[in-house]
Amino acid sequence: MAFQKPKGTEDYYPEDMAIKNSIFASLRATALRYSYKEVSTPAFETLSLLTKKEGDEIKQQIFTLEKRSKEEFGLKFDLTVPITRMFIENQKTLAKPVKWFSLDRMWRYEQPQKGRAREFYQLSIELFGADSIYADAEIISLAIDCLLDLGLTEKDFYLKLNNRNLLQALLLEIIPKNKLESAIRIIDKKSKISEKEFEEELKKEGIDNIDKINSLLKKDINEIKTTNSNVKKALDDINQLLALLEDKKKFIKFDLSTARGLAYYTGIVFEVFDSNNKYRSILGGGRYDNLVEMFQGQKTAATGFGLGYATLLLLLREKNLLPGSENYVDFYIAPVSEKEIKEALKIASKLRKKYSAATDIMARNLGNQFKYANKIKAKKVIVIGENELKSGKLTVKDMDSGKEEKVELKDLI
Amino acid sequence: MAFQKPKGTEDYYPEDMAIKNSIFASLRATALRYSYKEVSTPAFETLSLLTKKEGDEIKQQIFTLEKRSKEEFGLKFDLTVPITRMFIENQKTLAKPVKWFSLDRMWRYEQPQKGRAREFYQLSIELFGADSIYADAEIISLAIDCLLDLGLTEKDFYLKLNNRNLLQALLLEIIPKNKLESAIRIIDKKSKISEKEFEEELKKEGIDNIDKINSLLKKDINEIKTTNSNVKKALDDINQLLALLEDKKKFIKFDLSTARGLAYYTGIVFEVFDSNNKYRSILGGGRYDNLVEMFQGQKTAATGFGLGYATLLLLLREKNLLPGSENYVDFYIAPVSEKEIKEALKIASKLRKKYSAATDIMARNLGNQFKYANKIKAKKVIVIGENELKSGKLTVKDMDSGKEEKVELKDLI
Repeated sequence: MAFQKPKGTEDYYPEDMAIKNSIFASLRATALRYSYKEVSTPAFETLSLLTKKEGDEIKQQIFTLEKRSKEEFGLKFDLTVPITRMFIENQKTLAKPVKWFSLDRMWRYEQPQKGRAREFYQLSIELFGADSIYADAEIISLAIDCLLDLGLTEKDFYLKLNNRNLLQALLLEIIPKNKLESAIRIIDKKSKISEKEFEEELKKEGIDNIDKINSLLKKDINEIKTTNSNVKKALDDINQLLALLEDKKKFIKFDLSTARGLAYYTGIVFEVFDSNNKYRSILGGGRYDNLVEMFQGQKTAATGFGLGYATLLLLLREKNLLPGSENYVDFYIAPVSEKEIKEALKIASKLRKKYSAATDIMARNLGNQFKYANKIKAKKVIVIGENELKSGKLTVKDMDSGKEEKVELKDLI
Repeated sequence: MAFQKPKGTEDYYPEDMAIKNSIFASLRATALRYSYKEVSTPAFETLSLLTKKEGDEIKQQIFTLEKRSKEEFGLKFDLTVPITRMFIENQKTLAKPVKWFSLDRMWRYEQPQKGRAREFYQLSIELFGADSIYADAEIISLAIDCLLDLGLTEKDFYLKLNNRNLLQALLLEIIPKNKLESAIRIIDKKSKISEKEFEEELKKEGIDNIDKINSLLKKDINEIKTTNSNVKKALDDINQLLALLEDKKKFIKFDLSTARGLAYYTGIVFEVFDSNNKYRSILGGGRYDNLVEMFQGQKTAATGFGLGYATLLLLLREKNLLPGSENYVDFYIAPVSEKEIKEALKIASKLRKKYSAATDIMARNLGNQFKYANKIKAKKVIVIGENELKSGKLTVKDMDSGKEEKVELKDLI
């Protein structure tokens, strides 16, 4: 075959598209019920914006556009960066807190693998201007409700919760400050590598007291005893958060090793996984109080999360929770011969005021028309012949039950 | 300001986004009622695919991606090309006729101007596998219904209809075959240039009998008398089409000068303009029976149209037909002090089973909370204080009328 779609991208045929539309509609409804409003940003942004947060190393993963003018552009690889730019452009006039969401497509140049493609879709939730723990509670509650509203239950997923300030304060009791960043980076990937690899990576960075780190990361929240005021403050925050999330308790696992690699998180962080840890994380987020300022806005507290469509789809499929694709047609109007096509078109046109309707546009015989009506999942078929038009009495055939019903043409519409 | 969005692109803030969602929902509903199914293709395609139809000159208008592997990619600039590729990949198994639509975003590198940006949205309707005039009638009827369903009327727009075969056959009575293509190209832009420019361009191509061409293009369909069998055949087609579109007659103007520049149209062509000819065309389409084969599929009749969001939006705004943006929140729960925030969160959470609800996550005083509730267009505000929680009796304030109502907490949810 000569022309193919680019590797790592997907065509959505009607069935898959209906599923995506239906899942997006559910996510949209959940966000709207939480009083979040939908926004959208361009597909590409200036390269200076895109590389600002994570530095030049991210450039390798950006689909850059060929330079046509002075400016360099790249396709967006997340939604937080462009939405933050958009927030800053009208920061002064927007009523705070600003609660936004976006359901959009983005791109990353990397080797395609299961649940991760070069073109992918995410729901992004962004909350600007609220630095309280209530804001974190709202975001986490919204994240869990997004999944519950799709039919998932506590048997299917759990949320790992941590406070980066707590992890940092506790680590600083064991390791020196200049090792902190690399320690967090390695801890963040602990669940993806072996114990041995974990130890080796730490050693490579000159971090030795690995036993202490290991025993620290296993601690439950009640096991952390301290007189250190930084630890205490971080512990208070997370305990207050857990109290606010009482009704979502069964979904939440405190986990000191959850760090969310990216350097820009500043407080509460969380990640959702399927209960069997079979897939990549379904969603992840947290607080990033420095990002707006980093992008040259006025310093603003912010929190949010990103939910990937690809992993969500894998889990929903496994749990038999894919929304029934409403890929049917209410009526198919079958003209007996070409003579009746014009009348069939008229009837279809009238039915379309209320229903979906298809009719013959191929001048096919009745047998082939019924085959086609079956293929497009027509619920009811109405045959239009000379007699029907003369008498004004139509036969409506239910394609599931096979039952036929006589209806007056004038009553049908 | 340091970071700005790229020129010719748009941020959709909540108000504009709600309008776009609402217009898209209307277009989607119309297409579904006609039994068309939604599909979607990647943002970028191989450059060889994108340039196949219109040749290398289109390359200037394509946002190409920087080369990362052997393949060259560009952002799509229309939907017909990628959807045709997608059709061909499963051509053998799809039930014919295939009726698809797509509502998507695309990109063109050109100077931004009113109603035409570098990033833009279109509805594309594609019908594969039906070569009858009934298919053309269905597509045109669907195009008109898309606009009627948005509230536009025959006072607001009209559809120019032509048959390229008719234009060609009539031109060949006046000019030699080797001048045909350039003549059609120039005729196609007649309405955009002056009479003098029109004549000059024709002369430059060595076409002299301009008076004959001018008088030909003014002819109404009844004024075309002929014994030429090609003209007759093309005339029959369009007369049959007009008969099928009887109920849409008032929208349709026969216009021999409508050619749809692109070389790939093969029969019926049409374009919709606002009645004052103030804007660019709102939609345009026609039959393209050679395209599937040109893209190395098995020869398949095809027809369809593309409707641009930008021009549609300009017209709907002028006619005061923008859908009311449903940018409100059902309930705002106002805790009197920080002590009541936890209860307020619980009540909001329960209300969200059915309604949209916001609550205070900033620990603000009541005055500031009411200001915020106003800004986010909360319909009703419920104040939660110590007394309310003790008595279980809440006051629900309607923000429009100012009326207050006493409600039992347990009855609210």
